[in-house]
Amino acid sequence: MPLITVQLFEGCSAEQKREYAKALTDASVRVLGIDPGAVDVIFSDVKRSDWATGGVLWSDKPKG
Amino acid sequence: MPLITVQLFEGCSAEQKREYAKALTDASVRVLGIDPGAVDVIFSDVKRSDWATGGVLWSDKPKG
Amino acid sequence: MPLITVQLFEGCSAEQKREYAKALTDASVRVLGIDPGAVDVIFSDVKRSDWATGGVLWSDKPKG
Amino acid sequence: MPLITVQLFEGCSAEQKREYAKALTDASVRVLGIDPGAVDVIFSDVKRSDWATGGVLWSDKPKG
Amino acid sequence: MPLITVQLFEGCSAEQKREYAKALTDASVRVLGIDPGAVDVIFSDVKRSDWATGGVLWSDKPKG
Amino acid sequence: MPLITVQLFEGCSAEQKREYAKALTDASVRVLGIDPGAVDVIFSDVKRSDWATGGVLWSDKPKG
Repeated sequence: MPLITVQLFEGCSAEQKREYAKALTDASVRVLGIDPGAVDVIFSDVKRSDWATGGVLWSDKPKG
Repeated sequence: MPLITVQLFEGCSAEQKREYAKALTDASVRVLGIDPGAVDVIFSDVKRSDWATGGVLWSDKPKG
Repeated sequence: MPLITVQLFEGCSAEQKREYAKALTDASVRVLGIDPGAVDVIFSDVKRSDWATGGVLWSDKPKG
Repeated sequence: MPLITVQLFEGCSAEQKREYAKALTDASVRVLGIDPGAVDVIFSDVKRSDWATGGVLWSDKPKG
Repeated sequence: MPLITVQLFEGCSAEQKREYAKALTDASVRVLGIDPGAVDVIFSDVKRSDWATGGVLWSDKPKG
Repeated sequence: MPLITVQLFEGCSAEQKREYAKALTDASVRVLGIDPGAVDVIFSDVKRSDWATGGVLWSDKPKG
């Protein structure tokens, strides 16, 4: 406890996930006053062809 | 808001997901009276060897 | 299959959920060509004080 | 994107969640280089009587 | 690891959840050959008015 | 109902999942007194590079 699940577009590097897991854990420790070992982070990559906003898949949207 | 997560057997075509995301979003707009842009849909493909009903994996069931 | 999970702000009436479950199921049947009995919909109410966008809880945002 | 879901024991104050949502969002912005508005955080309170580790509900564990 | 999430109709007694968490953990230990302390179980109660099968909320279905 | 989601490290054999699904379903039937057909189990494989405990990805931890 806590368990943090992160759904994000695929494409994050291993290094980014390493840093991201650390940053989310640090934030949890700081705000909740808990031990880092109590924090689990699970990343779940989502393809742009599996995520829609406004009824349109991100794989179909023009890149900004 | 809302966030709609759909767990379904893998094998759906890109065209089906495109149409499905649109249909789920339209339903949300119609019932909740919200803006389409407020609706997120995330598809999560599940293998038949990762889903069991009645204690039996779907990959082990005879196809009807 | 499929399993549809809908996270939405609390405050939806029973009648809206009834209609919404029906609409999401109908959309699934139409797009996937499956039997309605194969579709599960689970609603999960989220308080505005439990959902943040842009780092700000919705309970803290001025109502538009 | 990303969508961050946090399952945590109930008992967090509104002020802690406010600060926590901000901290998780800031971490996301810093690591992923995205706009804060792209980050959603959803908190899901879990009762100690609904979470077990090692087969024992936390409500049954002696408090350390 | 593993993390087991159980969505079930509300109405389970505390004693049933206690026994259920133990049984799911025992099953995990037996099949995966892991330590019981590695197993987390989270129960999530769902109201019958929040779960639909076949487009009909369970709160609207005649009890069998 | 119930719906059991199991997040576990990838690497489980098909035979282990077959046995695990059966064991989780049996436990549910025994404790809840329900029909096996009412139990769904969904496995979700997680890479060690997608799961962190204590801020460290499992792919970065020395194997015990």
